Amino acid sequence: MKFSPSLTNLIEALRCLPGVGPKSAQRMTLHLLERDREGAMALASALETAVARIDHCSLCRNFTELDICEICSDTRRDRQVICVLETPADVLAVELSGSYRGLYFVLMGHLSPIDGIGPREIGLDKFRDRVLEEGIAEVILATNPTVEGEATAYYLTDMLLPRGIKVSRIAHGVPLGGELEYVDGNTLAHAFTGRRQLLQEQ
Amino acid sequence: MKFSPSLTNLIEALRCLPGVGPKSAQRMTLHLLERDREGAMALASALETAVARIDHCSLCRNFTELDICEICSDTRRDRQVICVLETPADVLAVELSGSYRGLYFVLMGHLSPIDGIGPREIGLDKFRDRVLEEGIAEVILATNPTVEGEATAYYLTDMLLPRGIKVSRIAHGVPLGGELEYVDGNTLAHAFTGRRQLLQEQ
Ligand SMILES: [Zn+2]
Ligand SMILES: [Zn+2]
Repeated sequence: MKFSPSLTNLIEALRCLPGVGPKSAQRMTLHLLERDREGAMALASALETAVARIDHCSLCRNFTELDICEICSDTRRDRQVICVLETPADVLAVELSGSYRGLYFVLMGHLSPIDGIGPREIGLDKFRDRVLEEGIAEVILATNPTVEGEATAYYLTDMLLPRGIKVSRIAHGVPLGGELEYVDGNTLAHAFTGRRQLLQEQ
Repeated sequence: MKFSPSLTNLIEALRCLPGVGPKSAQRMTLHLLERDREGAMALASALETAVARIDHCSLCRNFTELDICEICSDTRRDRQVICVLETPADVLAVELSGSYRGLYFVLMGHLSPIDGIGPREIGLDKFRDRVLEEGIAEVILATNPTVEGEATAYYLTDMLLPRGIKVSRIAHGVPLGGELEYVDGNTLAHAFTGRRQLLQEQ
């Protein structure tokens, strides 16, 4: 005996959510059918709408429903500084900390040669052109303090420093091996204040 | 700054899933949009199909896409015995244990006067009529060994015994306070074999 086909199908489909195993997919399915069919329908429509409308900002690559996102088109922000980070969740964490008023560039990942993710896959070629064309005053590197995040920061430094761009790395307070999106606002504020300029090696 | 509207909306909508808090709803949303848009669309369609097609079997109240579910219409099963349990997940657990070949009646809950759930809300009035009309040989009570499950079993006993119906309660092995759906097949088989007949008090 098994559950009926569309019930089994829903249990399977819920497995696309990170952290949801077979047992919790089953519990979710029965919960929705028994107690929250309205919520299930709202979720279905939210999924469809998000997939249809959300794309990447053509300037910063963050998720947005517009061609250019609200941050990129906000004229009150400091347009001379760009902070580079890995994910949209990182942007949200920095914004909520209130410690930064410049622009962003979201890599949507980090360099990972073993997975075939090179500079082009995370948009670094276009980013370099933009930084040079717009005469950006400073690029702040806020990739995660992990092996891949550090390698990505190193690559960016190597790409921009020889072209005379001021590059800094956020520091102090972000715990090593930690994930930026889980760091509290105060710690992030500290990290922005304590950033150090990277100098070209002699 | 917040995420864009349809992204925020999806994060909110995912909260209808049991055990999903704001942080994991955010992680799920970003994961789907970044890495599994196909999975998101499949989930949306699975939700819609399940809500549209799944209803209760008109005999046993279990979830089914048919008017009478596959178990209720299976002529090879013992139609003289009905096992009463709380949820569809409990039916699945008993079926997988292979320890039972009769029919089921699924309460879709248990008596809970404080939440306004009385005998009628869990279908006991119709169940009584059916048991009496069909001359059922035995009703096996497999509600959970919790306060509410025991109270429900007590109510059923009180309803059926005076009318001359043989009533038994599964026993041995299901740990007190435990949830039937998480018990392994062997323990469940043991519980079915070791069931004891309930006798009317003198
Ligand atoms: Zn943007
Ligand atoms: Zn049925």
